[in-house]
Amino acid sequence: MVVCLRSGVPSDSLSSRKNPRGSGMTRVHDQSIASPTETELHSVGLRFTQSGAIAEITLCKPERRNTQQPAMWRAMAALGRTMPTGVQIVVIRAEGRSFSAGLDRSSLNGLDRSTPSDDPGAETLTSLLAGTDLTIERAIRDYQDAFMFLRDPSFISIAAVQGHAVGAGFQLALACDLRIVADDAVFCMKEAALGLVPDLTGLAPLVRQVGYGRALEICVRARNVNAREAVALGLAHSMVPADDLNDEVRAWAESLLLANPDAARETKKLLQSAEISELGHQRELEAAAQVRRLRALG
Amino acid sequence: MVVCLRSGVPSDSLSSRKNPRGSGMTRVHDQSIASPTETELHSVGLRFTQSGAIAEITLCKPERRNTQQPAMWRAMAALGRTMPTGVQIVVIRAEGRSFSAGLDRSSLNGLDRSTPSDDPGAETLTSLLAGTDLTIERAIRDYQDAFMFLRDPSFISIAAVQGHAVGAGFQLALACDLRIVADDAVFCMKEAALGLVPDLTGLAPLVRQVGYGRALEICVRARNVNAREAVALGLAHSMVPADDLNDEVRAWAESLLLANPDAARETKKLLQSAEISELGHQRELEAAAQVRRLRALG
Amino acid sequence: MVVCLRSGVPSDSLSSRKNPRGSGMTRVHDQSIASPTETELHSVGLRFTQSGAIAEITLCKPERRNTQQPAMWRAMAALGRTMPTGVQIVVIRAEGRSFSAGLDRSSLNGLDRSTPSDDPGAETLTSLLAGTDLTIERAIRDYQDAFMFLRDPSFISIAAVQGHAVGAGFQLALACDLRIVADDAVFCMKEAALGLVPDLTGLAPLVRQVGYGRALEICVRARNVNAREAVALGLAHSMVPADDLNDEVRAWAESLLLANPDAARETKKLLQSAEISELGHQRELEAAAQVRRLRALG
Repeated sequence: MVVCLRSGVPSDSLSSRKNPRGSGMTRVHDQSIASPTETELHSVGLRFTQSGAIAEITLCKPERRNTQQPAMWRAMAALGRTMPTGVQIVVIRAEGRSFSAGLDRSSLNGLDRSTPSDDPGAETLTSLLAGTDLTIERAIRDYQDAFMFLRDPSFISIAAVQGHAVGAGFQLALACDLRIVADDAVFCMKEAALGLVPDLTGLAPLVRQVGYGRALEICVRARNVNAREAVALGLAHSMVPADDLNDEVRAWAESLLLANPDAARETKKLLQSAEISELGHQRELEAAAQVRRLRALG
Repeated sequence: MVVCLRSGVPSDSLSSRKNPRGSGMTRVHDQSIASPTETELHSVGLRFTQSGAIAEITLCKPERRNTQQPAMWRAMAALGRTMPTGVQIVVIRAEGRSFSAGLDRSSLNGLDRSTPSDDPGAETLTSLLAGTDLTIERAIRDYQDAFMFLRDPSFISIAAVQGHAVGAGFQLALACDLRIVADDAVFCMKEAALGLVPDLTGLAPLVRQVGYGRALEICVRARNVNAREAVALGLAHSMVPADDLNDEVRAWAESLLLANPDAARETKKLLQSAEISELGHQRELEAAAQVRRLRALG
Repeated sequence: MVVCLRSGVPSDSLSSRKNPRGSGMTRVHDQSIASPTETELHSVGLRFTQSGAIAEITLCKPERRNTQQPAMWRAMAALGRTMPTGVQIVVIRAEGRSFSAGLDRSSLNGLDRSTPSDDPGAETLTSLLAGTDLTIERAIRDYQDAFMFLRDPSFISIAAVQGHAVGAGFQLALACDLRIVADDAVFCMKEAALGLVPDLTGLAPLVRQVGYGRALEICVRARNVNAREAVALGLAHSMVPADDLNDEVRAWAESLLLANPDAARETKKLLQSAEISELGHQRELEAAAQVRRLRALG
């Protein structure tokens, strides 16, 4: 049973109630894992709220343009693992003028020595280099969990993007099922310019949506893709004036909630397989899913 | 040898001759299976005609908005299995104002008790529930055959869509290689709103054409996609005024028939594999197909 | 070490220096294979030049509209196998009014007896028919190498297309990562009209970019796709007036060279796998690539 307590959240927030994370009153996907506390989330620039079937994860460090770092990814992944089962929509949104300016440069310190670290003990990409290749790969896969959980068929994920979504910020938006953007949104895959690769699972949705050549030049040129182009390329599913972004996301969430929740879940799962499966296999998945639906309705 | 006898068919029909199904004069793909008779087809709301290389399957129950039911799918699948070998183009068209309003609600009776069944003995989705899961899956796979055969490389399939194409109607159009639409066409994937999943093989062509996010919101929101949007998304390959639909389909069929028939077949097959195959495998398929073409021409 | 000597090349050429192929001063991918000499290349209608990180392969038989034949493909494949390692961009361009009118009809002589062969001893598709199926397949796979090497992650390949790109010409453009086109460009897949299939690896990029139905009708109808439609379909990544084509290609090459070269290579490779891989596998490839990048930067 999901219990929500009213609590002060920003007035522009989609959900008006905050979920008491870790209160023990919330059924979670993995009950052996404690949800991150509000304090833990705040320390990495995140806030979690829930209102009925709609959960919101808010990037709330606008003074740093919602840059991302390993500790934030670990907290986000933990949010994913402990998402209350009643949630049907997960909105990823951000406070301030930009969605996310990408990797916090302090995470690259040592690689980019010009940027001092705020917290010398914090996990950074540089600190990983002391370990073996296997250790680094494991850490990266932990980070990827923060992006993978948004594909969970249990809910539909929506990125609400205003301003810049750069690098890891672009990939966070790409990891969501849907992208609703303000007309000032700007996407940029910065990694190649920094000598890195986009490794946070954003390449697959990018290339499948815009095509191989377009995806390649967007990544290698590290150029800006503005909101209008994002709509034309099918990367953004709706574009509205910045002031209307929250209303638009709310309207989409409501229309998505009109479907039978379990049918929506099965449909999301089937669409994920349909992208790359042989049709002979896909039809079997569809038949098996329909059996479950008919049994549930019958 | 394909023999066609002139026979009365609607004047707006693309093909002007009717093929005497089951006459024994038609070479069929699977000679051990009898083609459905005209009477059998009529009882499930279908009509089959052939004129040279062009076959037409017409949904002809406009008074019920060409809704679909299991018996129709079984007949359609049988048409597919017995398609005369000379056929190079299969057109799926419909009489009346709408292409197909989807599943006949009487097929859901018991699930949707408000709709009485016309024929208490008819096969319905509900009647399936008396069987085991395996029995249901087998039945669904039989239904899917009505949609799978349209991918047969022996011919190119074209859906001629006016008015509504809802649920199974949308999937029938998606199962065709090409969709030529009247400007009043409206597509809607209704399944999730009814608690079901689209299980008639339409999800793969949908998601690969419009992208994952767009496909997801179209399915889960069960919203209307009009002709103009269908063209913009690449779902429809040509849009014309409703009165010109048959002429447009005829023109496309004629231009498709200009190709070498066997080269067209091999090309269709290669494009199907090219969508999801490793390039290293695809090039081998292409080389093998070209050997067959060169031998045939040499 | 790549050494380039200044040498006379056409003034409209992107690279201003010519690489002395086969001089032994160039590090090549496969050192056991000699690069084709300038004379060898010229005899099959090709020219190779290099200026720093940018290599150009020019189709230089405009009097024959840059038609292609087996000997040209073998030379092109050899260029691919011996591409200097410093090359980050490979431009495929053509002299004259058209990019390439496709297969030289003399390669079909015997199949198309109306066209006399210039060189009775030359390798032609017809001459292949004396061999076994396996021999023909091997020859075709050799030809395909001329198109496959353009996918090599070592560099980014750009087709600069003016005028007609027909059949093998269309496939050559499709084999490149990017297509920059003059506003007079016209693409046409002619193979099916000639009784052949497109077997030079162009179908996969075509179908994944424009979708299955559109790809099918383009191939089977063998119709012209002009520059404007190519842009709308995402087949062309930029369109400019014909006089500006070389400048535009140069500008793109320069912006692509701003990325870290190794990051660009890893990104190209990751995008190739992302198109058709399971996400669970793709994320592992991304993590492994990032480990390599971090080690290189650290």
